Amino acid sequence: MSEPLSDSALDQLFRTARTYNGYSDEPVSTEQLHAIWDLVKFGPTSANSLPARIVWCVSDEAKAKLAALALPANAEKILKAPVTAIIASDNEFYENLPELFPHADARSWFVGNEALAHTTAFRNSTLQGGYFILAARALGLDTGPMSGFNNAGVDEAFFADQPSVKSNFISTLGYGDPATIFERSPRPDFARFNSIA
Amino acid sequence: MSEPLSDSALDQLFRTARTYNGYSDEPVSTEQLHAIWDLVKFGPTSANSLPARIVWCVSDEAKAKLAALALPANAEKILKAPVTAIIASDNEFYENLPELFPHADARSWFVGNEALAHTTAFRNSTLQGGYFILAARALGLDTGPMSGFNNAGVDEAFFADQPSVKSNFISTLGYGDPATIFERSPRPDFARFNSIA
Repeated sequence: MSEPLSDSALDQLFRTARTYNGYSDEPVSTEQLHAIWDLVKFGPTSANSLPARIVWCVSDEAKAKLAALALPANAEKILKAPVTAIIASDNEFYENLPELFPHADARSWFVGNEALAHTTAFRNSTLQGGYFILAARALGLDTGPMSGFNNAGVDEAFFADQPSVKSNFISTLGYGDPATIFERSPRPDFARFNSIA
Repeated sequence: MSEPLSDSALDQLFRTARTYNGYSDEPVSTEQLHAIWDLVKFGPTSANSLPARIVWCVSDEAKAKLAALALPANAEKILKAPVTAIIASDNEFYENLPELFPHADARSWFVGNEALAHTTAFRNSTLQGGYFILAARALGLDTGPMSGFNNAGVDEAFFADQPSVKSNFISTLGYGDPATIFERSPRPDFARFNSIA
């Protein structure tokens, strides 16, 4: 049985962590991107489907291409951040299931059922996006997740050769600059959005 | 700037954490459910929309009602687990935005745009589901997330009085019994599902 993590760990992951609009000049290394994936990959997905496909935009060219497809306020964040990750979703993730989920013929659950495949891909790539946010925080980094961009444009610009892959959301990544955040928005108590049955 | 969490914390959150099929007899208290929410609520959602609605099934009656709507293998897990959480999504989350996101008229972005509201609700309630899994682990608990159940039936059984609320996924919760898990499925290296641009 595990014990709760320390208060400082819970703060870093959840309570004092924030969504950043800007970052310090401290770079983020390729090794850190690998380290994030090496945590994210262990998060649970349905039938170990791992549908997320991540493009880590680190070059000026990639950032400019992505920024041109984002809302103006988000474009500025993308251009200035050390990294922006595009979290995308492979709607044909099931082709990997014979390898990723060897216990059962899970591929057959999805082939020919496009609605189920799309829902599963969207739900599980989003879960992996949540793991990405918390993995980055666990490694001392900060994120700025955003959905204000042209999804179809990003798909065309980054995934033209992979028609089954669709962008889900994007997130800046770096060491957050506290000067770029505002007061935290309200967080309701348990009774507001939870019930016990 | 934060430091990376300890190796043991990274193990507990990601690397040695597992999806459990069964749990010890150790109970989960109402205070623990509140403690999970008090971490989950801080995870980022688009415009602080917080669309997740969680029903924590702790009574035999609620577990039986939910189990009757799940695949047989999942029904057994629900009946035996100390708690099963239904993570649902409020498609009319935007009615709370004047309170939750006071900086802008975010409600107007969604009213009358049902497709955007549904996508935003599904994406962000799923992110909150990811935070739920990792918050439970951070507090020393284990989870067993599942999507093999009758969503429409669960909506009718648990949310009949809230037609804008739709079930997303469910998860058992407790202190995992290592005897109930199998060998971990493969987790591919960075190069398989990631690229650097």
